[in-house]
Amino acid sequence: MTKQERGTRTRDALIRSAAGEFDLRGFAQATLSAISVGAGVSPGALHFHFENKAAVAEAVEDAACTTLRRTARIAYRHRSDALQNLVDTTHALAGLFREDIVVRAGFRLSCANDCRTELNLRQEWQSCVQQRLAEAADEGLLATGGLRQVDLARTIVAATIGLVTLSQDSGEWLSPHAVTGLWRTLLPTMTTPEALAALEPAGTPAVLLRSLTPVG
Amino acid sequence: MTKQERGTRTRDALIRSAAGEFDLRGFAQATLSAISVGAGVSPGALHFHFENKAAVAEAVEDAACTTLRRTARIAYRHRSDALQNLVDTTHALAGLFREDIVVRAGFRLSCANDCRTELNLRQEWQSCVQQRLAEAADEGLLATGGLRQVDLARTIVAATIGLVTLSQDSGEWLSPHAVTGLWRTLLPTMTTPEALAALEPAGTPAVLLRSLTPVG
Repeated sequence: MTKQERGTRTRDALIRSAAGEFDLRGFAQATLSAISVGAGVSPGALHFHFENKAAVAEAVEDAACTTLRRTARIAYRHRSDALQNLVDTTHALAGLFREDIVVRAGFRLSCANDCRTELNLRQEWQSCVQQRLAEAADEGLLATGGLRQVDLARTIVAATIGLVTLSQDSGEWLSPHAVTGLWRTLLPTMTTPEALAALEPAGTPAVLLRSLTPVG
Repeated sequence: MTKQERGTRTRDALIRSAAGEFDLRGFAQATLSAISVGAGVSPGALHFHFENKAAVAEAVEDAACTTLRRTARIAYRHRSDALQNLVDTTHALAGLFREDIVVRAGFRLSCANDCRTELNLRQEWQSCVQQRLAEAADEGLLATGGLRQVDLARTIVAATIGLVTLSQDSGEWLSPHAVTGLWRTLLPTMTTPEALAALEPAGTPAVLLRSLTPVG
């Protein structure tokens, strides 16, 4: 292992340890000493990588952001139609929130601080939803009744962001079961009966598997 | 004005000033001196009412909780049918979040601290939604298709809590327009076509007026 590889590993270990501390105690209560102990490194090694607690928090936010974006990209690459892709993407992102403490802590931190990152992430998610719905309209998948696309996009964004907020009370809110229930409720109003029959509210297993496999 | 009335007024002014400070700067950055200056009272008067910043924050949370509960009760007292009441209640509560800084700061604080109050408020809201849907089912208003009541309740809770979370980015998310859009999206899937025709997604004006009139 080169010196650079060791440095990257130490930094990653510090980010993961910090995420655990922030998740458990919140930004204000987390201590740099607990973060370095958790990463199995000296306080000096921590200070080599991060100037202070705010810098560690920023790194956790950035790492969360990178992972969320990468997962959404992979899900999109394996898309079949636009609506199924939207369903698959929410399942993949929910999986990250369940399983990746850096994603969870990073998203929450950005809210507790000055909303720097999360604001962007929430806006990115809104753009993503709007884009998929526009594609679905182009593909003739959206119901053409009185439902306005802008209302639909907002409802989907609000409901999914709400699941993340509520998951602070209980992880059950981001379970595959809960995400599937959301789509079982929303899809019938969004799409034509023919398109609905072909959609899988529980997500496409192959896409979810690919999206959630860590890059080696 | 009796001494007790003066005391109550001072306490209310401190709670309102603190809410403004917490809303603007967050709990960690808010200072007791700015709170007493904002309320137009001396630091000594603040300390007569509150031991420390945490005690002020708790009072803000409790005040928010009381206002939210009272508004929901008033909306319920003027109910016509269960679904319209659910719509009216969300509009009334959204109005509070828009217009009452104590409600906004109190709800957010409880999340930033240890989720003591907000957890209860979110659970109370979930119970409220579940109860209205059960009543709607009794009244024969719910669609009897494949939609499961538990999925529907969760979707409504997630979408409404999501609007509150997103309103931190932009107040537009809790505008009457946005809340109406949510119900325009959800109601068609929830109810029978006959019941839908009688429902007003924008809320019942008389109920909203009564719910949002401050108690004298």
